Amino acid sequence: MASTFGNNIKISIFGQSHSPAIGVSIDGLPAGVRIDFEELAAFMRRRKPGQGAFTTKRQEADEPEFISGLVDGVTCGAPIAAIIRNTDVRSSDYDQISDVPRPAHADYAAYVKHGETRDVRGGGSFSGRLTAPLCVAGGICLQLLRREGIRVAAHIAQIGKIKDRPFDPANVGDEDFCILEEAGFSVLDKDSGKRMLEAIEQARLDGDSIGGIIECAAIGVPAGIGEPIFDGMENRLASILFGIPAVKGVEFGNGFAAVELRGSENNDAFYIQEDTVQTRTNNHGGILGGITSGMPLLFRVAFKPTPSIAMEQESISLSCRESTTLTIKGRHDPCIVLRAVPCVEAAAAIAIYDAQGVRI
Amino acid sequence: MASTFGNNIKISIFGQSHSPAIGVSIDGLPAGVRIDFEELAAFMRRRKPGQGAFTTKRQEADEPEFISGLVDGVTCGAPIAAIIRNTDVRSSDYDQISDVPRPAHADYAAYVKHGETRDVRGGGSFSGRLTAPLCVAGGICLQLLRREGIRVAAHIAQIGKIKDRPFDPANVGDEDFCILEEAGFSVLDKDSGKRMLEAIEQARLDGDSIGGIIECAAIGVPAGIGEPIFDGMENRLASILFGIPAVKGVEFGNGFAAVELRGSENNDAFYIQEDTVQTRTNNHGGILGGITSGMPLLFRVAFKPTPSIAMEQESISLSCRESTTLTIKGRHDPCIVLRAVPCVEAAAAIAIYDAQGVRI
Amino acid sequence: MASTFGNNIKISIFGQSHSPAIGVSIDGLPAGVRIDFEELAAFMRRRKPGQGAFTTKRQEADEPEFISGLVDGVTCGAPIAAIIRNTDVRSSDYDQISDVPRPAHADYAAYVKHGETRDVRGGGSFSGRLTAPLCVAGGICLQLLRREGIRVAAHIAQIGKIKDRPFDPANVGDEDFCILEEAGFSVLDKDSGKRMLEAIEQARLDGDSIGGIIECAAIGVPAGIGEPIFDGMENRLASILFGIPAVKGVEFGNGFAAVELRGSENNDAFYIQEDTVQTRTNNHGGILGGITSGMPLLFRVAFKPTPSIAMEQESISLSCRESTTLTIKGRHDPCIVLRAVPCVEAAAAIAIYDAQGVRI
Amino acid sequence: MASTFGNNIKISIFGQSHSPAIGVSIDGLPAGVRIDFEELAAFMRRRKPGQGAFTTKRQEADEPEFISGLVDGVTCGAPIAAIIRNTDVRSSDYDQISDVPRPAHADYAAYVKHGETRDVRGGGSFSGRLTAPLCVAGGICLQLLRREGIRVAAHIAQIGKIKDRPFDPANVGDEDFCILEEAGFSVLDKDSGKRMLEAIEQARLDGDSIGGIIECAAIGVPAGIGEPIFDGMENRLASILFGIPAVKGVEFGNGFAAVELRGSENNDAFYIQEDTVQTRTNNHGGILGGITSGMPLLFRVAFKPTPSIAMEQESISLSCRESTTLTIKGRHDPCIVLRAVPCVEAAAAIAIYDAQGVRI
Repeated sequence: MASTFGNNIKISIFGQSHSPAIGVSIDGLPAGVRIDFEELAAFMRRRKPGQGAFTTKRQEADEPEFISGLVDGVTCGAPIAAIIRNTDVRSSDYDQISDVPRPAHADYAAYVKHGETRDVRGGGSFSGRLTAPLCVAGGICLQLLRREGIRVAAHIAQIGKIKDRPFDPANVGDEDFCILEEAGFSVLDKDSGKRMLEAIEQARLDGDSIGGIIECAAIGVPAGIGEPIFDGMENRLASILFGIPAVKGVEFGNGFAAVELRGSENNDAFYIQEDTVQTRTNNHGGILGGITSGMPLLFRVAFKPTPSIAMEQESISLSCRESTTLTIKGRHDPCIVLRAVPCVEAAAAIAIYDAQGVRI
Repeated sequence: MASTFGNNIKISIFGQSHSPAIGVSIDGLPAGVRIDFEELAAFMRRRKPGQGAFTTKRQEADEPEFISGLVDGVTCGAPIAAIIRNTDVRSSDYDQISDVPRPAHADYAAYVKHGETRDVRGGGSFSGRLTAPLCVAGGICLQLLRREGIRVAAHIAQIGKIKDRPFDPANVGDEDFCILEEAGFSVLDKDSGKRMLEAIEQARLDGDSIGGIIECAAIGVPAGIGEPIFDGMENRLASILFGIPAVKGVEFGNGFAAVELRGSENNDAFYIQEDTVQTRTNNHGGILGGITSGMPLLFRVAFKPTPSIAMEQESISLSCRESTTLTIKGRHDPCIVLRAVPCVEAAAAIAIYDAQGVRI
Repeated sequence: MASTFGNNIKISIFGQSHSPAIGVSIDGLPAGVRIDFEELAAFMRRRKPGQGAFTTKRQEADEPEFISGLVDGVTCGAPIAAIIRNTDVRSSDYDQISDVPRPAHADYAAYVKHGETRDVRGGGSFSGRLTAPLCVAGGICLQLLRREGIRVAAHIAQIGKIKDRPFDPANVGDEDFCILEEAGFSVLDKDSGKRMLEAIEQARLDGDSIGGIIECAAIGVPAGIGEPIFDGMENRLASILFGIPAVKGVEFGNGFAAVELRGSENNDAFYIQEDTVQTRTNNHGGILGGITSGMPLLFRVAFKPTPSIAMEQESISLSCRESTTLTIKGRHDPCIVLRAVPCVEAAAAIAIYDAQGVRI
Repeated sequence: MASTFGNNIKISIFGQSHSPAIGVSIDGLPAGVRIDFEELAAFMRRRKPGQGAFTTKRQEADEPEFISGLVDGVTCGAPIAAIIRNTDVRSSDYDQISDVPRPAHADYAAYVKHGETRDVRGGGSFSGRLTAPLCVAGGICLQLLRREGIRVAAHIAQIGKIKDRPFDPANVGDEDFCILEEAGFSVLDKDSGKRMLEAIEQARLDGDSIGGIIECAAIGVPAGIGEPIFDGMENRLASILFGIPAVKGVEFGNGFAAVELRGSENNDAFYIQEDTVQTRTNNHGGILGGITSGMPLLFRVAFKPTPSIAMEQESISLSCRESTTLTIKGRHDPCIVLRAVPCVEAAAAIAIYDAQGVRI
């Protein structure tokens, strides 16, 4: 049951990198909601491959076909299902890896789990391509949230050792969100962005790859969303974020940095502003006891460097049970972080929308 | 539905800090398993309050009464339920906080969510006390896993800025596990441990608190456990770990450190040793594509400093909607990390046991 | 995961007939709801054993102890947990059946599923005793529903071949509900009730048992509750009703009788009364397409005769794998239907309350 | 979350009668299983519309396109998704019912639940057409079960007042299953079948419709499948069977007939045959305490007469809130029971396969 998420809405993702299509069904959205398809298409384009030197050259139209759940572009209460055809598929690129698993990739784990009949082509169902249906579902949730006054935006906080200006935790708001909406490259500081692109280009020239951090904020989330213990906002967000390939860490508010602070430094003092309860600082990242506090929701997601690199690597032959070397062909991103920004926003939107409970 | 965890087993936790009792039901364990109550009691003692200067002075017997699921100490196939009476309860300590929420605590979120009728005493159901039933369930899972050759152990990797020697990712094994079993204080390096205790004592003397990191390893986990996308081992572990109060970050393998590496540095080369597929390094923390690789499972959990500190803090009166100050009375840990070590082991054991699927 | 029910609330039942206690946790009820304990106790008494010649002579106080979820009798938002101690336990009655399964009982199925270590005493977790925690949860839901104007009542529609007057499907209402509230024995027609009791007494004298049908109605349920396909009101109600031991059939509205009708006879014509959409007849039992129509919800539940009878029966020895005979000792109801009436109401109340969705 | 079923596998159904397509995703099937597409197509044809005078004249190819989960016709471990295009769609037939709900149909409930934006065309997501994806999933489960020696078959036990010969409860087996495999019309007794068809034809000529009962058996199901209380085989089967439109009752074994029996008549004596535990009679329908006994699994499903009839009916105008009459146009089955036979088999197969637990 790898592919289902949600308590109040239910997202089911299906497909493999090279199957006829990939897709998603979304159950539990209210009837009567108009989908803005242009906005959704614009959102989908942000994770689209083939956009330049920095991403894989694979070309995909990535246009979802909605096969159910809508009447004239408005939700009718039935599950929404959308499929995306896999077109520019070159399966021959993957002949070798059926026997020689790529280091740091899911190949070996898939071999152990599903045996000889796993789908090796393009990483099968472990492919980053499965984030496209996630973005379809998330793009719709983003639209619904925005109509309630909730906005979600992410930026590339770090590539290798190069850092973007972080969000101001207690005051993240319209200004930064406008910068990101207009930015071609999701950073707050253009100069940092330029240096990030240089670092990615250098990794590509070296036949190597590079990792990074995405920081995400949600503003306008009312206080009181989430449940204690296992269904808190941190649990739910982590639960969906680790569904994005290459994510190896998630932290909220101060996160790992909080461990070096004392309580007197990390605690966020409450005060009243315009009859609203706020905190002077936002080290808690908008979540207390698993429940939203009304302050901006803030979290950071660590992405490891893309496992697929052009350099020769040490691996094994599964059939011969002996060491060998592997040189990966095919078209791969030197840095997955660029295209992951809308995926993080999508995941956050789904988790936040879901946590708000059923709308009858 | 905050209080239920698991796909193949189902853990339901209930209780508040000052309700008559707290407890847990565990559904889905196989029949015919003998529980070692002495071992369980020893495990429970590791999270027990009142053990010295470094933890809260609240005294609790913390002995679970098993009210179902067992016949003569052996599981019978019915859900196991255990309750722990709340005895040393001094609710008067909490009179003030019903109106003045403690900074960084769940008080305000609980007020928004549950209103005037929330249980403010001792943090209600948000209390760290709820980790006692988690440890009952986890302690049982640890026993079951050990019988399959799977062992889980955690240590305090960091308190404030003081670090313990980390696990050797690719070679964590018996030696370190023995050190931790014999250690009174869960560190690999005694000297680091001594300095950690000094730092905690200093925080306590200052009326302050301090955070830390727990590193956890599981060895003997077979390759192939976990599911892709939303039900990977990372998703499941994060989902339960964020159920432990004060956790603000979770990372697997290299985690956030991986973002500064290149793929050629972070990728773990496969090789064959004694006919077993292994990786030379273990930057992936034993999980690839959400599925275990057969290498040691490794993750780190960030705990913020205990929110309850003796120093005066800025807060608000919920009834008057105006600023005020708060001085917290009651008995609180200057550092929650010490008692959280078995909680992390318990959570890990539950998630791993659950992920292995139904045993019919 | 036998023991958990609900989408929006989560009921977890635990315990065996002869374990130290049985109990239930109920997660997801709103905070701020006062429980009427006297009303709950009166409701629980209706399923209590030991009330006369017609039910088992086992004496149980059956008073739930609430160990969490309440502060001064009002829900606080945390899961409600209640336990009921098993007191009048005579396990020696069950020595024989550990080897010789009782016909029509769960003994043999439990042996296959859980093996030698199953709890044979009193039927273990298969005992009708587990309906006591179901009634605790259901009794609370009944109170919550009543405050929303939804009332649930059941009567014994049939014992053996003796039938009570049925509810008038389209007009079931206050009058019948009053009769049932005041009735010591849950029938609409006193004379039928008298003959039912005679039939039960005759079965008891014969060392035999007898089955029956319970008809249940819920009035005031608003139109629009339930979901299509797998989460309709029929699916949900059936799913919980078959959790009551001895239930072998469930039908809604006309049920099995509808198969002999033509569409023109079975279809319920719509009309408007006082601006409310109603149907002239109620053959659909208040459910169309899985969703409530606003008409009275009506269903019938078939109970087989109690499997435990005093007469000698043919069975087998599990250890010797050979035929033998069995004479059941112990205290058993000649007709389980009497005590099952509140269980059916409880199950219905839980399913209806759950289907209404989350109250944030 | 109407559209998801299963604990160990997860079936998600989507689509409306007149949306571009309908479909299903099936998560949790093991890798390495070859699908027999011809067998599946033959199974699908049994529920296909347009097969003669007795079913709707709507023509649908009903050929599922598998878009994921398979490589060369073999499962690869990823979710299987299949879609079926809706081709012969005449939405104009449904213009009137957007304002005038059809009696006994889901139209009014859908209006209340989803409002003006519900999909009225062809019954939207409430249409019997959604049983096509159910049959895709069930047809695959039937194949998997058969390879384990478990076979499922159903016949039309009753149309109006005309009854087929019932299965012999304790001895249902190959002989009857062969008759049904070869039968064009799913009855055990040809003569009864002929009279059923006459009754259906008469109903059609009268512009009316007629109901019926389907009896289903599963043989070869091992003892020990199912869980007590809420996850028994009866709960699970009922939960999915009520997902088939027009089902109003479900009974197991003797079902409602058991209520008129005494325990001494209804109890099934155990005996040993060829070292296998069996029961002399099978009044329990192969399920004891929610768990399979190893005897044939037997249940009966009541279908109300098709709501859509040609005769004029009394209804209301939703917009004017006043009485009106309705004459339904379009193409409708006078008796849904014929095409429901494979749907019942599909539902049973899914529930049985799911109940057997995860195959790792």
